[in-house]
Parts: sequence; C-alpha cells; structure tokens
Amino acid sequence: MPCAVFGASGYSGVELIWLLHNHPDFDVRYSFSSSARTAEPVSQLYPQLTDRLDLILQPWHPDLLSELAGQVQVCFLALPHEISAELAPQLTAAGLTVFDLSGAFRLRDASIHQSAYGFALPLPDESIAYGLAEWTELSGTEALIAVPGCYPTAAALALLPVLPFISSTCTPVINAVSGVSGAGRKAAVHTSFCEVSLQAYGVGTHRHQPEIAQVLGRPVLFVPHLGNFKRGILETIYVELNDDVTAEQINTAFTDAYAHRPLIRMRACPPAISDVAGTPFCDIHWQRHGRQLVLCVAIDNLLKGAAAQAVQLANQYYGLPDTAGLNTIGGVI
Amino acid sequence: MPCAVFGASGYSGVELIWLLHNHPDFDVRYSFSSSARTAEPVSQLYPQLTDRLDLILQPWHPDLLSELAGQVQVCFLALPHEISAELAPQLTAAGLTVFDLSGAFRLRDASIHQSAYGFALPLPDESIAYGLAEWTELSGTEALIAVPGCYPTAAALALLPVLPFISSTCTPVINAVSGVSGAGRKAAVHTSFCEVSLQAYGVGTHRHQPEIAQVLGRPVLFVPHLGNFKRGILETIYVELNDDVTAEQINTAFTDAYAHRPLIRMRACPPAISDVAGTPFCDIHWQRHGRQLVLCVAIDNLLKGAAAQAVQLANQYYGLPDTAGLNTIGGVI
Amino acid sequence: MPCAVFGASGYSGVELIWLLHNHPDFDVRYSFSSSARTAEPVSQLYPQLTDRLDLILQPWHPDLLSELAGQVQVCFLALPHEISAELAPQLTAAGLTVFDLSGAFRLRDASIHQSAYGFALPLPDESIAYGLAEWTELSGTEALIAVPGCYPTAAALALLPVLPFISSTCTPVINAVSGVSGAGRKAAVHTSFCEVSLQAYGVGTHRHQPEIAQVLGRPVLFVPHLGNFKRGILETIYVELNDDVTAEQINTAFTDAYAHRPLIRMRACPPAISDVAGTPFCDIHWQRHGRQLVLCVAIDNLLKGAAAQAVQLANQYYGLPDTAGLNTIGGVI
Amino acid sequence: MPCAVFGASGYSGVELIWLLHNHPDFDVRYSFSSSARTAEPVSQLYPQLTDRLDLILQPWHPDLLSELAGQVQVCFLALPHEISAELAPQLTAAGLTVFDLSGAFRLRDASIHQSAYGFALPLPDESIAYGLAEWTELSGTEALIAVPGCYPTAAALALLPVLPFISSTCTPVINAVSGVSGAGRKAAVHTSFCEVSLQAYGVGTHRHQPEIAQVLGRPVLFVPHLGNFKRGILETIYVELNDDVTAEQINTAFTDAYAHRPLIRMRACPPAISDVAGTPFCDIHWQRHGRQLVLCVAIDNLLKGAAAQAVQLANQYYGLPDTAGLNTIGGVI
Repeated sequence: MPCAVFGASGYSGVELIWLLHNHPDFDVRYSFSSSARTAEPVSQLYPQLTDRLDLILQPWHPDLLSELAGQVQVCFLALPHEISAELAPQLTAAGLTVFDLSGAFRLRDASIHQSAYGFALPLPDESIAYGLAEWTELSGTEALIAVPGCYPTAAALALLPVLPFISSTCTPVINAVSGVSGAGRKAAVHTSFCEVSLQAYGVGTHRHQPEIAQVLGRPVLFVPHLGNFKRGILETIYVELNDDVTAEQINTAFTDAYAHRPLIRMRACPPAISDVAGTPFCDIHWQRHGRQLVLCVAIDNLLKGAAAQAVQLANQYYGLPDTAGLNTIGGVI
Repeated sequence: MPCAVFGASGYSGVELIWLLHNHPDFDVRYSFSSSARTAEPVSQLYPQLTDRLDLILQPWHPDLLSELAGQVQVCFLALPHEISAELAPQLTAAGLTVFDLSGAFRLRDASIHQSAYGFALPLPDESIAYGLAEWTELSGTEALIAVPGCYPTAAALALLPVLPFISSTCTPVINAVSGVSGAGRKAAVHTSFCEVSLQAYGVGTHRHQPEIAQVLGRPVLFVPHLGNFKRGILETIYVELNDDVTAEQINTAFTDAYAHRPLIRMRACPPAISDVAGTPFCDIHWQRHGRQLVLCVAIDNLLKGAAAQAVQLANQYYGLPDTAGLNTIGGVI
Repeated sequence: MPCAVFGASGYSGVELIWLLHNHPDFDVRYSFSSSARTAEPVSQLYPQLTDRLDLILQPWHPDLLSELAGQVQVCFLALPHEISAELAPQLTAAGLTVFDLSGAFRLRDASIHQSAYGFALPLPDESIAYGLAEWTELSGTEALIAVPGCYPTAAALALLPVLPFISSTCTPVINAVSGVSGAGRKAAVHTSFCEVSLQAYGVGTHRHQPEIAQVLGRPVLFVPHLGNFKRGILETIYVELNDDVTAEQINTAFTDAYAHRPLIRMRACPPAISDVAGTPFCDIHWQRHGRQLVLCVAIDNLLKGAAAQAVQLANQYYGLPDTAGLNTIGGVI
Repeated sequence: MPCAVFGASGYSGVELIWLLHNHPDFDVRYSFSSSARTAEPVSQLYPQLTDRLDLILQPWHPDLLSELAGQVQVCFLALPHEISAELAPQLTAAGLTVFDLSGAFRLRDASIHQSAYGFALPLPDESIAYGLAEWTELSGTEALIAVPGCYPTAAALALLPVLPFISSTCTPVINAVSGVSGAGRKAAVHTSFCEVSLQAYGVGTHRHQPEIAQVLGRPVLFVPHLGNFKRGILETIYVELNDDVTAEQINTAFTDAYAHRPLIRMRACPPAISDVAGTPFCDIHWQRHGRQLVLCVAIDNLLKGAAAQAVQLANQYYGLPDTAGLNTIGGVI
C-alpha cells in the first residue's frame, strides 16, 4: 500500500514513518516535512536512523498534489492543526484517504471546536470518522479519519467499558502526566532541559477536555501535567460508581471490551510509564475503594497516542490485523 | 540550644543536621547514625559536605543516654518507625524534648495505627503533639512532637482552609507524586536508577491515607505515585464544593489562614516541583471549575515534608520566628 | 536453532532473549534465571514484555544438563563471572556451543586474569575464541566464544583500524562514560536513583583495561565514568599519530575495515548516546588536531556491548548475515 | 557595597543576584535584564524566588548610566559577549568597577580573540585583569576584571600546580562534560528536553581552548561534551609527566597551592558532579599511572564557573575573605 506521510520531521511523524517503513503492507513513497525546510535525509534530523531509514524529507508544495494522487492511496498527516485543516480537504478532494493526527477534525460541535482551536471546523461532520481504534468500526470507505488525541485515547480506553457504572452525578476526574515529546520538537523555554519539572497546566481548559467529554458523552474534569521524561502518558482517573456495582461487573465489562483486543493489556498492578514507552499498548489497571473507582492507564503518547494508533486504524481500514507492523518494542526518539 | 540528631545518615537526617548546623540558635552536639555503622564523618557519605560540615556520625548506644541527657535538651529523630517507637519514650523519660520525623506517633487511633504500622501505638495519646506547623500551637512544654508525614503535610495545608466549603458527600481525592528520596537511602531494586519511572503505588492503602483523614476529620482517597526525580512532592487535589461557595470565600479562607504565614506561598499558577525543591515553602494554587475545586500543592518532601518542618516546629517551640534558619535555597542531596 | 539463555533475568539477559525471540533463525527453548529465584514469567520482572514474550524464567539446576544437551545446540550465558567460569566448561563438555557474555574467558594471560577477576583462568587458551565481531572470523567449530566487554568493544572498534598510525611512544587514553545498566540489575546504593551522578571510577584499574590492551596489543589508559542515563557508552579516545600520517590514510583505514560492515556507522559528527541507544550499531567519528587523533565512539552497552554482539557472533557462527534479527530500534529496559 | 547586575534574567545572572542578595557586604541596587524585556519581578522568571528575592528586573537603557554611576561602585555583567564588549568600556569610563562574566575580555591575543569571538578585542590588554581567583592577586584598583570561563576555571585550577612536572612534548588533554545550563536560558532544539543526550561538540575548536592555553602558557587539546544534567562540569584531564616526578612532589605542589584556599577541596576519590552542584567549590582528585597523570576536577558551572567566582573575586577586590557570602549549598535553578 503506497502511502505518504506529512509532517515527518516531527516526533509523531518520524515514529510514523519508522512504523510504516517496517510494516509488511505499507510503503512510504513520500515523506514531507512540516515546514519550509529544504530537502534532507531523515537521518540528518534523527541520526539514530542512519543506515536504517533512507528516506528524504522533502518540503511539501501544492503542485505535487496530482503526482501524489497518482502514486499513493493513503496519506498520514502529523501536522499542526491549522495546516491539517487546510490540507486534508485538498487531499480527500483528490481522492486520497487521510489519517489525520492533528486536532483539526476531532471535535463535532462547531462552537466548541472554534473555541478550542481558534478556527472554524473545516469539514462537515458526516465525512469524518473519529478513530478510537478499539471502539470504532472503520468500513474502509471513510475519506478522513481523525486519529484521537493522546490524552483522550488513554482516558477513553479506560473509561468507556465502565461508563454504565458511573454515578450520574459524578464528574470523572482525569489526572494526567505527559512526557515532553507531547509538546513537539519546536524549541521553547518551557520544554528546554533546564526548565522541565513536574507541573500542572491547562487545568480544566485543555483542548483535550472537550474531546474526552465528546467520546464519553458526559462532562469531565481533565488536569494535564508536564513531567520530566521523554515519552509516555500516565493517567490516574477517579470516578464514583453507582450504588450496586460489583467488582465482577467491572471485571466483566473490561473482559467483554478488551479480551480480544491485542493492544490493550489489563494489568494486575498499576502500570509504569516505562511499561508502555516504545510500545503500541494501552495498559489499564483498576481498583475499587468503596464507591470510588480508580483507573490507572498508561500509553506511549507518540505510539498508542499518535503514530501506532494511526497504523492500527489503517490496519483496520484495510482489513489487516490490529497488530500488523506493531510487534516491536522501542521508538525512534 | 544544644541538640542531637538521630538517623543523621539518611536523607531527611542529613538535611536536618545541615539546617540545624546553619541555624543561629541550634547547635548539633551529637549526630547518630541509624544503623550498626561505624563512626564516620558525614562527608564520607555526603561528599558535598566536605569542608562544610565536620560532624562525625556515631553509632547510637543506649549507654550514651545519660551523657546525652546531660548535654542536650532536644532530640530530632529521623529513624525507621519501629526504632523511633522504641527510642523516643526512653528519651522523653530522660527529660528530653523529642521531634520525631517517623510515623510512629502520628496516628491517634490505636487500631488504625496497629494496622498501618504493624506495631502497637507506643505512647498514650495525650503526651503527643501532632505538629502540622501552620495549624498547631506548640506551648513549649510538649515532650514529644510528631512531625507530620510528607504527603499529609502538603494535603492538609491545601485542604484545611477550605474544609468548610467541601460537600459532605464528597470524598476528597489526593493525587500525589513524590520524588525518589521519599523512599530513603536504602538500596532497593524499585528505586534503582534503571527501574524508576512514573507509577502509582499503595493506591488507597498507603499509611499516609489515615493520617490525612485524621488531620481533616474526614475520609479521603489518597493515590501516591513514585516519579523520576530526586526530591519534591506535587499533589493535585480534587474536591466538590458546596452549592453556594464563591471564589471570594475561598480566597478569603486562604488569606485568613496564610497571609501571615511566611512559609506558605499562594500561587497564581500551578507550582512546579522545581519551584519548591530545596526550599522550606509550601506552594498552593487553586482553581474552581463549576463545583469542582482543584488544588495544586508542592513541597520539598525532605524539607517542608520533613527536616524543615521539624526545624519550623522547633522554632515555634522555642519562641523563634518560623523562618529562623530556613532562609536558604538548596538541600544537601 | 534451538537455544538456551542463562541469566535471563538480568539486563543483558533480557535483551538477549528478546532479540533471540524475534530472530528468524533462533528459538529460545530455555531461559534460566541467574539466581535462586523461583520460576516466574519474564513479564513479572519486565512488565513491558507482557503479551510480547511469554517465556518462563526457571531456576537452573545441574540435573537439567542432560535434558538441555538433548534439546539445544547453543547456550548464551549472561551470568556473573564466577558462575560462568564454572558452568561454561560443563556445557561445552556436554557438547554445547557457548556464547559467554561474562568476563570469565576474555583474558588470555593467566596472571592478569587472576588479578583482574580473583579466580584462575577456567579453561586453556586454545579452546576459547574472543569474539570481537567485526575482527573475528568464527569457523563454526569453536566450543566457547567469549563475547567482549562493553567498554572494550567500543574502544577496539575505534582503535583497531588506526593502530598502525599510532605513535609507539604514546599510551592511548580512553575516556568512557557508561549508563547505569552497565552495573546490572542488583540493587546498590551507588546505582540508586538519588545517588547516580557523573563520576569517574576504577581509574586505570578497571578489568576492562587489560582486555583493551590485549585486543590492541599495547598498553592503554582506561578511565571509565558512571553517567546518569540508563543505557549506552560514549568513549572519547585520544592518541598521538606518527609524524607522516595523512587524513586520507585514516579515512582509508576505516573504509577498508568497515565499508562492508553493516553494524558500524562512520559518522561525520560526534555521535550522541541517543543515536545508538536501542540499536546494535557502533558509531565512530574521528578528528585530527595536529598530531592528536580524537575518536568519538558510541554503542549501546546492552546491545552492541553485550546481547546484540552475541547474536551477531552467533549469526556469523551459523553463516547468517551479521544483521539477522538485529534490524529493530529499541531495547527492553 | 551597592552594586548592579546586568543580564540578571539568565542562569548565571540569577545565581549572581541570589548570591549578592545574601552577601553580608553587597547590596543589589539594580538588576538589569539582558534583553528587550519589560520590567518584571525576578520571581516571574524564577518562581522558586517568590518571597525570597523581591527584585525587579528592569531593561537597561544607556540614559540610566549617570544615575547608576552615582549610586553604585561595582557592576557585574552576565551578558552575551558582544553586548559586554560594548557596555563594559562605557561603565569603566564612568568610573565603575566591572566584573565581566562574558568572554569579551578574557583573551589577550588580538587575532586569537578575533577568530574566537568574531569581533575585535574591545579594550587594550593592560586595563584588564584575568581573574582566576586562586591565582590572581587583585589590588582593588583594577577597572575591569574578566571572570574566567567555566571550563578554563576547572582546567586551570587542576593543571596550574603541576605545570612544572608536565613533559614538554605532551599536549594536555582536557575531556570535559558540562550540564545544559552552560548553554544559557535561550530556547534551542539542541538543549530541549527530548534532544539532550551525551555528546562531544566543538572538538578542538571551542573558544575555551585558547583561553586554557593562555592561562597555562602551552597548547592543550580541549574536548567538551554536553551531558544530560542541569548544572556542573566534570573534567578528566590527561598529561604525561616528566621522568623523575614523584607522587610526593605532586602532593606538595597541590598542598602549596591550595592548603590555604578555602574553595578548593583536594579529594581522595574522583569527585561526582553532585558533590559540587550548588556549591562554590572546585574538587580535585589526581592519580598517577606510570608517567600518566589523571586529574579529575569538578565545579558547578554556574557558581565556581561563573557567579560564585565573580563574588569570590569581588571579595578579594574589597579585602574580604574568599568565602564571604559563599557558605551555602544550593543554587537557584
């Protein structure tokens, strides 16, 4: 399956081309850099890929569209939201299938989208599939698949199975810690080595809060933190259960949802970031304390929270097993 | 004020002797190591103290008690719980004032204590003061002051001012992340460099949960995590407010509680671990989102969560300003 | 090729079983833990391998030898030196081929060995091959292959091509920094999270100094340091060139030695640890400043410095390409 | 002593104002930010200083010069080289004493300076003192004191005592690793959290190489590395001794040089970065291996390598003890 990757110079982008390069069924025919860079080998930016991945990152130019449409069927976009919002409709109009890793197409409600991203929803709702891999059935005919955000992926995978058991009066609390790669590769003081610590940010105002609320169908309180590690997300989630919920019910709900899902691991102990870093897995552990349910969930933000989920969705789209191309441990950065 | 420090070879202990050594009113006459070590200069264990602190750590022996009682008035204990439980009563019986940093004397309820620590409460309740520095008035006559745990210090300082506003049906959720020094200096696989990541532990079962509940007078759900940094604790706390609580009320409550407290800093932004590491401060930030109140609180686990709070309490005990000897930035380890 | 791995619970051991498990030509039939542990799934110790590697680590017992000899042809030993010294001869006596990752069989000189390791050289010289992969031709008939040490691998790969150009009066200086995994998984204060910093150790007295000298055939000064990262070795090597050496000669020497060697990457810039961590590569960069030659060389201590080199040697032993089973990025820990 | 600090928003600058603020004999009357920032409290940039240091960083404007000259006697400059080169002569012309932490005034040779810094030496040689604190006698009349670079401070302090013993044919090799704060606070990809690793840079071409050569009076080979820690420099230095040098001679040389120097610590073991981070000390350890002398030397790049050495020099300038204001442990960042 010939494909193109846009935004291949960023952290999610490079993980994506590495996964696709090693995938038995995909062939990265084009890799475009996200910015006004000049053409350069990917190993210039990521020396660890020297002798491993001989792709040239080339700057995207709209004139390339017709050539591209003749060569590939599917595009993966790991671009800034605004750029994706503009480019994706051009690609789908040219008949290409687009897996978009940005936030441009995730929110359904126009006003919420406008307020979260600062620009209008670029496409009508019906043409977009929100691709939470374990909970979406792609038909293989969708033109545009919005790959969920990293934080929402973890939160939704942990909460969806137990949604029926959560008290209607409770606001689920999602306490999340992300590694620094979540902020992208662009230099900034707050992500420089000497400044990173552990700190909450965007408390109750992060763009991923309405996305989580949309997936769950109920409001949540989402509190992200930036932590001093490269990759991974750990979420500790607190909900109040209905009166009569039993441990067996919870257990059954997770089993029903995930027993046959190869990329979800139900864990007997709280997962560590290091258990999932470099893997496509989502690790979930739960404990009940009285009426409180505590969920500990961990993913690699660049893999299950971005590139690996995009590949998993593409696998589903083309009728391949979820795990095709996703059996390794280890990421590029 | 001549004093002695027990357990001076551990992380809290060495911070304590460094603070007391630089304190204008205290004089570390004895520093005992916690174990069957031989006498050694503190700079052997902590080379950063070479030419800075010329104390010899000597092994404690019961025969030293009468000499000790003749030379010092106050002892600081940074010992394992069981050892403190046995030693502290001997010291108070000899007329010495004891500031104990272990968990041996913090819990009031005998059965909760027995179940949390695995041994009986070593002294009757009345003789022990629980020393949460901003909320305790020491009279200077107490024989034994239990210095609060690190996690409870942060949680209680954040929650006590707003306790009247918290809905009676809500269980406060305390999500906490601690640096590795909280586990002490003893070698263990889970605190070795290659194994530390970010991971929840003791979910709902940590010894500090009943301590927090005791201070607040209501049950809480406490979920600690081990993080990959040396020192500091960050707690993100979630409570549901009563219906009619205004932001002004919350603001006033904090102002009333802490405007004249020099070691509490009310912060306009969520504090980072690095803002408090090496300081005796407790930084508190709060935000209201609907009926949810989010509190972000940060302390240095070895300082405000241990050694500096002990010094602050000793300052209060002897009528000195809270900040005496606590105006530096930076710790030993 | 059915094989067994001894010491599979350690850091090198687990990388080895992961590589061999994914290798197209090897099949890990047995994995023995190094200690008196009980049988346990490898994912108990390394949760990241959950649903990835379903091996049971079982304690080794000598009674298993005959069964083992009937089932496998080749054993990989990632054991403490003394234990390897005792076990390897038993395995070779039973007709098994042994790739030994310890230091028990690397040194040729009996007295140097005795003084470095504290026990006698366990086998006569002739029966042992020292397997520096790019410089050894294995015939496939050797009974015991000593896999070189991590530091010596990097040093020798950088220095061997330029050996003829080094002034006879100069003592090559090898300044090395290793990640903490080099010290193994055993808990120790000096490798605990709060104690690791950057510090020289074993200056001029490390066991790897005579090993490097043996490979090069001349004395060296070797100064290792422990650094605050998990995996990887960076060596900066200083030698004085003979008078008339040209840059072209040096370039040609490296090209001749490594142009056809897929796991050596000649680099135009000094390599970073992160360029090689998780890879089987050895990255080499050199610069001439007057008569001084500076070599910057980086490997992953657990891969090219241990497990991946062992696999590379086994590939050579069985006539496979060097890179068989070594095309991934990323390690277990 | 009223003083002003320029460049107070940078890492060295903030350490400087913190040291001077706590100094018994200095009073920070002005603190200027290095850039076109607006006036802001220092605790805005460094929240850890909240309630500790209430200075306002104000943007410098040349119109302030006469006011400044009327209020203070001494200025500390922690500015970019080019800005220092322009400003320092204006300040000295106004009668102010300047301690300059940049590289603008360190090199004596005009052509070497031009080539290292890209601009002409801004002042004639005679008016500048190079202030390596343990080796300079300030008379208190100098107008401009160039505070040495961080790397040269460590290298010179280790090498100067043994200079007479070094073989005339040997080129001393200085292998150095610096923490990331050495690169300053400005955001850059190579100092962002996800990109920092351990890597050599500027091999044999760094600006500090001619500075070290100037101090020693002989050529050196200097190879710096960037390491993954915030603060500190570790240098491992290799020199060849003359034939007849004894250990006693070396020992005596260090004793003669430093026995009465309170900020040099001769160490029996190789120092770790963590031994000196947050301190004004220079720790030196040496070992002889045959004719090779290995020196391990560690400093805090922001303190002994910048701010603390500036304060130490100011102490000497005004006849105070070296250690005045330098008895703490711990830095701001």
